[in-house]
Formats: sequence, C-alpha cells, structure tokens
Amino acid sequence: MIDENSIAKKIISVIRSIAGNNDLYLHEPLFFGNEWSYLKNCLDTTYVSSVGKYVNEFEEKISDFTGSKFVVAVVNGTSALHIGLKLCGVVPKDEVLVPSFTFVGTVNSISYNNAIPHFVDIEQETLGIDTKKLLQYLYENTYVKNGICINKLTGRIIRAIIPVHTFGHPSNLDDLITISKKFKIKLIEDAAESLGSFFKGKHTGTFGDLGVISFNGNKTITTGNGGAILTNSYDLAKRARHLTTTAKVPHKWEYLHDEIGYNYRMSNVNAAIGCAQLENLKTILLSKRKLYEVYSNKFSRISELTLFKEPSNCESNYWLQTIILKNENKKELEVILRETNKNRIFTRPAWKLISELKPYQDCPKMDLTCSKSLSKRVINIPSSPNILRDINNNG
Amino acid sequence: MIDENSIAKKIISVIRSIAGNNDLYLHEPLFFGNEWSYLKNCLDTTYVSSVGKYVNEFEEKISDFTGSKFVVAVVNGTSALHIGLKLCGVVPKDEVLVPSFTFVGTVNSISYNNAIPHFVDIEQETLGIDTKKLLQYLYENTYVKNGICINKLTGRIIRAIIPVHTFGHPSNLDDLITISKKFKIKLIEDAAESLGSFFKGKHTGTFGDLGVISFNGNKTITTGNGGAILTNSYDLAKRARHLTTTAKVPHKWEYLHDEIGYNYRMSNVNAAIGCAQLENLKTILLSKRKLYEVYSNKFSRISELTLFKEPSNCESNYWLQTIILKNENKKELEVILRETNKNRIFTRPAWKLISELKPYQDCPKMDLTCSKSLSKRVINIPSSPNILRDINNNG
Repeated sequence: MIDENSIAKKIISVIRSIAGNNDLYLHEPLFFGNEWSYLKNCLDTTYVSSVGKYVNEFEEKISDFTGSKFVVAVVNGTSALHIGLKLCGVVPKDEVLVPSFTFVGTVNSISYNNAIPHFVDIEQETLGIDTKKLLQYLYENTYVKNGICINKLTGRIIRAIIPVHTFGHPSNLDDLITISKKFKIKLIEDAAESLGSFFKGKHTGTFGDLGVISFNGNKTITTGNGGAILTNSYDLAKRARHLTTTAKVPHKWEYLHDEIGYNYRMSNVNAAIGCAQLENLKTILLSKRKLYEVYSNKFSRISELTLFKEPSNCESNYWLQTIILKNENKKELEVILRETNKNRIFTRPAWKLISELKPYQDCPKMDLTCSKSLSKRVINIPSSPNILRDINNNG
Repeated sequence: MIDENSIAKKIISVIRSIAGNNDLYLHEPLFFGNEWSYLKNCLDTTYVSSVGKYVNEFEEKISDFTGSKFVVAVVNGTSALHIGLKLCGVVPKDEVLVPSFTFVGTVNSISYNNAIPHFVDIEQETLGIDTKKLLQYLYENTYVKNGICINKLTGRIIRAIIPVHTFGHPSNLDDLITISKKFKIKLIEDAAESLGSFFKGKHTGTFGDLGVISFNGNKTITTGNGGAILTNSYDLAKRARHLTTTAKVPHKWEYLHDEIGYNYRMSNVNAAIGCAQLENLKTILLSKRKLYEVYSNKFSRISELTLFKEPSNCESNYWLQTIILKNENKKELEVILRETNKNRIFTRPAWKLISELKPYQDCPKMDLTCSKSLSKRVINIPSSPNILRDINNNG
C-alpha cells in the first residue's frame, strides 16, 4: 500500500478528477474527420503507394501551416533526420551536436550517416539545449578554421547541431541560430514532436537549414507511419525528394539512379490520413492547450512538482504534458510510475539519457548535469486531445 | 511513322487484341475485398501505427501462405534486406554477391551496411543467378579458410549472396543452397517480386537463411508501403523484430535501447490493407497465370521474340510478364518502348545494370555477358491481374 499523502496518490487524484475513470493513454490519435473517406479514394483510384494526390496535398498543407517553403513527406521522423543530415553535408566521422535527453531516433539518424553524436546538456526552462552553456563549451573546446568547426580534443569536424523541441516545446532558437552562424555548424531542427509549436510567432522546424516533423501514431496528428522534411531551400528540397525516391533520375521508362538513394517516401494511404488529420489540427491544438490549463490549475496545489509551461515568447503544441518533480528521488519516481500505471493512467518517465545507452556510451559529451537531473524528475502524463471530452464526444 | 511490320506494331496489336483499348499500366493493384472495412477498424480502434492486430494477423497469414516459420512485417523490401544482411552477420567492408540485373534497392541494402556489392551474372533460363558460372568463378577466385570465404583478389570476406527471383521467377535454389554451404556464404533470397512463386513446391524466400518480400504498390499484392522478412530461425526473427523496433528492450514505461536500431516496422494501416489483399491472393495469382497463357498463345506468332515462361520445376507468380527479343538491337528496343508507351501501353525495359550506375561502377564483378545482353533484350509488358477483366469487373 502506498501512503495516502504520497505524491503518487495526489497525481492520480488530480488526473482522475479531470479525466474520469477511463484508461488513460499517453497520447491517442483522434479520427473524427475525412480519414475513412480519403482512404476510400486511395483504394478507388488504386493510388496507395508513394505516388498519389494526397502525398502532394499533404506536403502543400504542411507547407501552408508551417510556413516552410518546401516540404518532403517521408516514412518517419527518423528517416527524415537521416536524410536531413546527409543534405547538410554530414559525412562519416563528422561529429553532430545533439541533446542526450531525447528519443533514440534523433541520435540513431547520426549513426546511419556513420557520423558521431556529441552530446550536449539541456536547460529546465525549455527542456531544449542549454545554449549559454553550449556557447561557453564551444569557445573552450573548438576552433573554426576555413569555415569549419573543429573539435580540439578529437580533431574531428563538428558539422551540425540537432536541437530537439522536446515534448513540443520550442528550444531557444535565437541563440541556436547565433551559435550555428558563429561556429559554422549546420542547424537541423528535430521538430518531430512540435507540429503546431511556434517560437516568436514562427513555426518550429523552419529556422534552421532543415527541420523534421514526425506523424507517428503517438504524435499530435498522425499518418500512421510518417514524417516530413521542411526546408526553405529549393535545392535542398529537390535533393531531399531525389534521395528519398531511390535517387532515380526521372524518365518515362528507364531505371537510372545516379547515387545511393533510399526508399523513404510516404505512401498515398498514409498521406490521405494526414490530409484529413490536418483539417482538424487547430481544434486538436486548442483542446491540448485547454488540457494544459485545466491540469495547471489542479496541479498547482501539489507543492512537490511543477507542470511544465511553454517557454516565454513561445506557443507550444503541448504535445506531452509534463510534470517535473522538485526533488530528485529515484524511489519516489518509481512509485509514481508504478502506481499510476497500475491505475491505468499510462505515465512514463523521460527517456533514459542516450549517452548512457550501450551503443553511445563512448561518444564525446559535455557535462550533462541538468539532463541527468531532469531524466530523474520528468514524468509525462496522459495528453490525448480528447481527455476533456469536448471534441469527438463519441466515446 | 513506324513500319506496319515492325516488331513494335506486332506487339501493340497482340496486347490490344487481348486487353482492349484501355490505358495499360505495368501492374496496377486490385482492391475488391475487405480493404476499406479493415481500414475503418484501424481508425475506430485508433491503432494506426506500428502496433495493432492487423500487423500480427498479416504476419501470421504470410507465414501460413509461404510456410516460413517466422515473418516480420516492415516498411518496405529494401529495409527488409538492409536488416536481413545485418542479421546474417554482414559487417562493413564485407562483400555480398548479387546480380547486376536487379532493382537498385537490392544493391543499396548492401551499401546501407557499408558492405560492398560483388556483381554476378544471370542466365536466360531463370533470369536469376547463373549458378554454374558462379560456381566456377568462386572456385577460381575465392578460398575458404576457417569457415569464411575470402575473395583472393581483394582479400575481403564474401559474407553473403542475394539471389533475386526476377519478375517473380524462382532462381535455381538447389544450386544456390549447394554454393552457400560449400563456400560458407549466407543465403538471403530477394523474393521481393515473388510472393506466390514456388520452387519444387516450396515457396521462394524460405530456402535461405532469410528471405524478403515486398508489398509495394506495383507488386502482386500491396500494402501501400510494405515488406517482410521471412525466416525459419526463431533467433533471427526475434532479432529482426528487435532491430526494426528501434532495439527497444521491452518495458512498460522505460526507454532502454541496447543497440542501434531502426524505425522499420509496418504500420497497422498498411497491414490492414495487406490482410484484405491476402484474402484474394489466390484469385489474383490464377488471373495472372491465365494472362500468361493468353499472352503466350498470341505472342508465339511473333518470331522475333519469346515470352518468358516459368523455369521447369517452378510455379511462378508471373508478376511481370516479360518478352525477350531474340536479337540485340538497341534501336529496335527504343522503338518498341517509345511506340508502346505512346500508345498508352506502359512497357518498360529491364533495369539498367546496377554495375553500370555511377555509385557502383567500381565494385568487383565477374563477367556479365548474359546480364548485358538481357538488359538490351528484355521488355516487361502490362501484367495487372485484371487485364482479362474476369475479376473485379467494375471498370
């Protein structure tokens, strides 16, 4: 039995008071629009694979919504990053700066390019890269020569940086752009989690050389499997399209491929779902923001934790609602996770730091004090857009 | 104007006499079953991503149909091969034997593993690897030491061989197994095109250490994007599942990944389409076989070409119907392709040999006389299952 006054009990009580007695998943997609109807169109026209009108339409709609000039729809966010790094000139043995506090896919995309992740710390204010600390670190540990940033210790080129807009919250993009320019490091935004999140009024994923979005089943909106590459560069977009369609040179019947490409394009079926989902994106975003407000109000009464609020100057999609325990207490954390999950409130902790996973233990890294601390204090709580049941009220 | 007695005219005349005046694509999928209904179930249950009952069901059904003990559904055939090679122990700088006469994805999967394709010739009888020629080549150019096959010239390990069941026709699997055993080379069948094709009564893709199938939109049946890994080994299947789901160690809420994995699992949406498609696979196969017979009868009157027939002891799915010109004549080939396509009969030539593509020009290769000749003589002609209009007669 757990203590009636335990944090776990208090959290369960707050969530149940808001969401009732249902099973509460972390993030369920919501289909109350034209999804089924658009899928029928795919079947009727026989366009189900990587060519079809919904793929084009989906790209256009994402372009309209985000303000990114070009959008290339792909099979998932990880593959979008894989190609994104390649497009930014990352070659084998390059280093890529990346938070250790992220989903493993962010870092795997670096490995797929035979490059080396170089882990950087995050800050509690944004849950993204601590740019002040990074700036200091780069001054001390790198130099720029002939427009290339070199790691003094390893002698390798630091070619790119991947900030992650964690749980949908924008990183400090002003500082990141400054760092990118100053140290000649390409900026690739991992906006996998942040569709609908804006930094100073501009959509995340559109600040760097490239950005990527995910439309996995657990995201704000979904295409089943899916991702996208965002860029304002015509040349990068063209090459993204080429590399993700097996690098086939267009011809009516000939099969000519001029480099090693990938089979990474989104299928028309997945895009059809995405087109329908996009029609309801604004409703879904409003609902998630409202959930934040309701959670915020109730959680303010629990002194042992805070509910994460969007950084200043930002509008976040509140993809995953996040509580942060004030104190580090591994046992407490375990109790909260165990009790909530036992109660069918499917919370989860932060990712295990990637720099602590077996395949990445030996990679270069800066001091990761804040990442380590947050990885023991962060808990994501149920964040589905229909928890308040004011949309799609059919359940 | 082209000559009334030209081969092009004769081909067009034969195809039109069989298929009428419609636009004739190379291979269109056919949806006349439960596809739309199963898709509704995905939306209703909100299971649209890489977890869901259709993924499991699809794997079970493919297992039943092919006789492969284990099946792992993935995003496409290329990713299936990528992982398949890794599962067979292919590491950077290894060589992998592969036909030059194949789709580029077969060979790219080798590059993704940082291994080196080593091109081998094919034979006209099967359109697959010329096993007699290969055997002789291996005797002359390799030696086996400590259970490992070494290329005498490069000093590199030849770790695996990927036979391709071209256009659905089974390669000589008896010989390939012999070679695999004798030279200690892992056998990975590229059965991307051969779902429904049997060698001596056993399904292609189930002979080697692993096999892969594709369910791309142009295949015999489709899932939109999709592929599968087949294996009779519990251990390989388990590891395939692990590697294709980001190598996440199962846990209720923790995110622990014990190696560099991939986001390669098929989504429930794609699997739902596949489950419905499989219910009609036998009908589709019968229809494709009948089309072969009708084509065969009519094309027998054109002396300048032959229609490719399934190899002896094989039952082929006749994925793509194939005509082979008796004489090499680049100009003639161009005329046939141009005139048929102009006539909206969307034929295509064989792939350009992969060993002649820019990224693969410097790879090791044996004499490729037959591949070169066939690449100038092979034409695929419209092969959709509903060309004879005896199924799905709603168009």
